[in-house]
Amino acid sequence: MKTYINPAKSTWTEILRRPVFSVIELENQVQSVLTEIKSGGIEALRKYTEQFDGVSILNFAVQEQEIEDAISLVDDSLKKAIEIAAGNIRTFHESQVSSVKKIETTPGVVCWQKSVGIEKVGLYVPGGSAPLFSTVLMLAIPAKIAGCKEIILCTPPNKEGKIHPAILYAAQLVGITQIHKLGGVQAIGAMAYGVDYIPKVNKIFGPGNQYVMAAKQIISRGDVAIDMPAGPSEVAVMADHTANPAFIASDLLSQAEHGPDSQVVLVTNSSDLVVKVKDEIEKQLAILPRKSIAEKALANSHAVVLDQVADMIDLINEYAPEHLIIAMENYAEVAEKIINAGSVFLGNYTPESAGDYASGTNHTLPTNGWARSFSGLNIDSFIRKITFQEISPEGIKNLGPVIEIMAAAEELEAHKNAISLRLEELKDRK
Amino acid sequence: MKTYINPAKSTWTEILRRPVFSVIELENQVQSVLTEIKSGGIEALRKYTEQFDGVSILNFAVQEQEIEDAISLVDDSLKKAIEIAAGNIRTFHESQVSSVKKIETTPGVVCWQKSVGIEKVGLYVPGGSAPLFSTVLMLAIPAKIAGCKEIILCTPPNKEGKIHPAILYAAQLVGITQIHKLGGVQAIGAMAYGVDYIPKVNKIFGPGNQYVMAAKQIISRGDVAIDMPAGPSEVAVMADHTANPAFIASDLLSQAEHGPDSQVVLVTNSSDLVVKVKDEIEKQLAILPRKSIAEKALANSHAVVLDQVADMIDLINEYAPEHLIIAMENYAEVAEKIINAGSVFLGNYTPESAGDYASGTNHTLPTNGWARSFSGLNIDSFIRKITFQEISPEGIKNLGPVIEIMAAAEELEAHKNAISLRLEELKDRK
Repeated sequence: MKTYINPAKSTWTEILRRPVFSVIELENQVQSVLTEIKSGGIEALRKYTEQFDGVSILNFAVQEQEIEDAISLVDDSLKKAIEIAAGNIRTFHESQVSSVKKIETTPGVVCWQKSVGIEKVGLYVPGGSAPLFSTVLMLAIPAKIAGCKEIILCTPPNKEGKIHPAILYAAQLVGITQIHKLGGVQAIGAMAYGVDYIPKVNKIFGPGNQYVMAAKQIISRGDVAIDMPAGPSEVAVMADHTANPAFIASDLLSQAEHGPDSQVVLVTNSSDLVVKVKDEIEKQLAILPRKSIAEKALANSHAVVLDQVADMIDLINEYAPEHLIIAMENYAEVAEKIINAGSVFLGNYTPESAGDYASGTNHTLPTNGWARSFSGLNIDSFIRKITFQEISPEGIKNLGPVIEIMAAAEELEAHKNAISLRLEELKDRK
Repeated sequence: MKTYINPAKSTWTEILRRPVFSVIELENQVQSVLTEIKSGGIEALRKYTEQFDGVSILNFAVQEQEIEDAISLVDDSLKKAIEIAAGNIRTFHESQVSSVKKIETTPGVVCWQKSVGIEKVGLYVPGGSAPLFSTVLMLAIPAKIAGCKEIILCTPPNKEGKIHPAILYAAQLVGITQIHKLGGVQAIGAMAYGVDYIPKVNKIFGPGNQYVMAAKQIISRGDVAIDMPAGPSEVAVMADHTANPAFIASDLLSQAEHGPDSQVVLVTNSSDLVVKVKDEIEKQLAILPRKSIAEKALANSHAVVLDQVADMIDLINEYAPEHLIIAMENYAEVAEKIINAGSVFLGNYTPESAGDYASGTNHTLPTNGWARSFSGLNIDSFIRKITFQEISPEGIKNLGPVIEIMAAAEELEAHKNAISLRLEELKDRK
């Protein structure tokens, strides 16, 4: 972790440069797998599952009995924890549902928006060493609240052709409609094109390795939408003398243990704090099971000391972190000035872990500076806001002449005519 | 306009197939222009403006004096019409602003979303035969309401190096911060990379020809977001015996006059109505200035007769039209069942033109079936919903153990440790 003391503003972009994350190089390779899935169907899915997951799967669809077995295998304390987290996530995402507001913009002209769930959504949960059941909750709970009719989950099988019980437990808890033992590019291809009993969906959500990201990017040029662009996970911490160095070290390490390309940035007005945090990192790192991963991430990470809080805020807004922890005396005031961030954690007792798992906010957030233009997942990600309008005869009499003038000025006579015919008919009616 | 009487459901996909709209073929060509703009700066912009717009421009930025001249050139009746339309668009989009709701998901755990405007947005308004000032209103008014700090408008100059006064009038009315005489791929490149006095933006909005669309698609793989994927404009009309054939013909023609690749679909349970509408189309078409364009669009268009209203609804939901007019006796009831559409127009006196110009709804809508996963432009398009959370010592005591169990089960020990350290510190405090 390199430290910069009061670096000039002109150097910030360079200091905060993220490692290049481009999936373009993988595109040809991923494209050829996708093409084969599109034409080869289930057989192609089997072939690549053997190749990449090392297991031969006859039926990708998880059966009722497997879910029942899983329920009995999950520890009661974990079940209870998942249920509490699910409840909080549900409460927070339900609060995002907007009601229909009919607006009369001109007498007789009424307009409104109606939120309608995307019909079919595909959720991807990566495999790997540990079961990411928390991601099941974060993707499926808002989909269910949004009213998505079909919620398809794909997640890779292990070498025994099984899915971790905790994932199946979470999936049945939140109302997933189909679960398939399918990972990587195969999963994205199956949900994008529809393969046999795996339906084509309208939008695909969820994290994944760079092959999954490349596949999502490719299929999004066809007719399936994706949640957001990809990048490694990251956290920035803003801290002052009131921060607890051990807490900050633990927050930086939680991010660093995600992967060797994770980003960790500490921004503070206290040089003293940097020293203490580094000491604490060393202590805590020593006993971490994922020490070697965290070390790699820390090697690319920065501590920036800026005397002025205003500069600290500017630097954070330029960086646009996925996660931002503000451990400062006046954190509420500082938070007001944050305009580019995915999710913000306030004060000494609000670690990122809380939002990763259980506080209620979504943990699928814009990385790689995309917080400048994207929100994290929320109810909007799973709905369309369809606009409606209803104009009465009185309304068209009021507004029609305005439309006629504008259409004529844009030289769109048929647009004008659609108004004129109606106005004439209403005149005749008198 | 071909008519299908009660076609089998299995044939719908084929009947409703849209003309292939792919910009992939243009990508190499557009990429090379973009690359040159990235390295060549203002000189490259000048070169391509000469080449594509046939005019040599020294300073792309529109000057105060040009705006003042434009204001004096626009007809008072058009000014008034633009102001009324702007007022309605403002009223409707202001109603979409959501307030901050703090949610306590667990005692001591408070989460909320805050809407923050995207800092810098780039708006593109195409040139062509007529001045599309309505698009200026539709893009800039929500950007302003959202609180975007910099709103950059690019639109191509004419052969005299000027921008149509109506566009400048609309731009100054709605608070655009910079206007540049720049069209096509040059405009998209300038706003995506930032060229000299034209700033790099975070998100680019607006329609354009296939070169503009290809450029938007390419730059969206970098770090600039775009509003939505592209496709030709389209309208579907659902009608029964209560519909007015002349009105419907005028609505279909308003869509058809947009361009030769526009899509027009009539779905009805009355064969009789199809005959009458076709007669009316012939009559109205004869005197249209854009007759030849509309004829081409109509050649690819369809009338589908389905006896059952339920089938009409299913067909529309499968097609997912950009615009949908429901001219049926029980239109409110039918509208309730529409799940895939961009914007819906209800009853005999609600023509698409109203939403195109002045009722208040946005006219930038998802085409090409993208209504299955995208909304039309609305306030959400110009903001990010940043999540915030604040957890008190009591809150972390309540929720901490849940997070510890989940983090341990996902084998992320540093995540767990961030909680454990805080819980220990609170225990020590007693």
